Amino acid sequence: MTDEKPDETARHRAKMEKRKAVQDAEVASKTIEKKGLLIVNTGPGKGKSTAAFGLALRMVGYGRKVGVVQFIKGAWSTGERVVLEKFGDLVEWHTMGEGFTWETQDKARDIAAAGKAWEKAKALMADPEMALVVLDELNIALRYDYLPLDEVVETLKARRPDLHVVVTGRNAKPELIEAADLVTEMTLVKHHFAAGVKAQEGIEF
Amino acid sequence: MTDEKPDETARHRAKMEKRKAVQDAEVASKTIEKKGLLIVNTGPGKGKSTAAFGLALRMVGYGRKVGVVQFIKGAWSTGERVVLEKFGDLVEWHTMGEGFTWETQDKARDIAAAGKAWEKAKALMADPEMALVVLDELNIALRYDYLPLDEVVETLKARRPDLHVVVTGRNAKPELIEAADLVTEMTLVKHHFAAGVKAQEGIEF
Repeated sequence: MTDEKPDETARHRAKMEKRKAVQDAEVASKTIEKKGLLIVNTGPGKGKSTAAFGLALRMVGYGRKVGVVQFIKGAWSTGERVVLEKFGDLVEWHTMGEGFTWETQDKARDIAAAGKAWEKAKALMADPEMALVVLDELNIALRYDYLPLDEVVETLKARRPDLHVVVTGRNAKPELIEAADLVTEMTLVKHHFAAGVKAQEGIEF
Repeated sequence: MTDEKPDETARHRAKMEKRKAVQDAEVASKTIEKKGLLIVNTGPGKGKSTAAFGLALRMVGYGRKVGVVQFIKGAWSTGERVVLEKFGDLVEWHTMGEGFTWETQDKARDIAAAGKAWEKAKALMADPEMALVVLDELNIALRYDYLPLDEVVETLKARRPDLHVVVTGRNAKPELIEAADLVTEMTLVKHHFAAGVKAQEGIEF
């Protein structure tokens, strides 16, 4: 493809120079150097917990401490466990919840489990060495009113200024989105379940 | 919360039993046991590459081999590298691309880099031990027509039946979405850049 016409090459370069100027201006417009972000991964699509897991791993790769509380048991699997255990003390991981609410069929037990998980979450967030705390499927507990929304949102807002927190799960509450710095909605465009394919090891679990 | 009225508890249980029956029926309706999935993470939101990274790590956690080709340099960072290197031979990782096209400003170089990356991708997909191949930011190369779309889509469709492939990047081509098994669109709901906050270590890079 080195036989490209010189004027096309020049045109491409000019266009990209312009684009780079826009990018550079955008970067320069940001003035807040360091801020712990409240990140919410929500929506019906895939990747909410997986992206949180990826983020946790990246942070660990920088040698920073990460805490995870799973509000629903089973959302993370053997694969995740093996990987996180490689990093020893850098990762503190708690599976506090029971299964999904339609598995337990016991509301009182679900509420008690959510309460315990939230206590653990607060303890992790209070640890001054934590760089990132993942509250996996917290949105589910909030959606079913298993936890007091006001208290949860206020506690998250009052976190240490440089602490990153990632909350995952469908149906994030508007109050949480309002308090968040970065919100991504994972939308389902197409799913192999619809084509009759079962959950695959390493992908779904 | 154990002072809940018995009839409310029963109502909750009945509702959840019904919901579980729906879930179980859905699971039972799936008959294809094992299939290598073509997964596409696209959209303007965050988490496309991070979720792919998380998926790769989970697969490695199961002791399966993973290959990664980065079509754009810089999309993955030091954090990712440190983590992946922990797994030695289970991960084969190639950064083939140059920077973003507005960084290089050289179309011929970008096309050559994309071609080389695609050759590497084909080699990884041909390795019978690979369980998952991540083609990070391939969508960008396709969007700028740096690679022949037809050939790429045909090659992906002709992959080994149990090989999972994850393609990331904005603006996935309709032909790729058509060929895919699982497509997630990451939508940006809210971003801290808009509030003047710079990219944060461990989060953006």
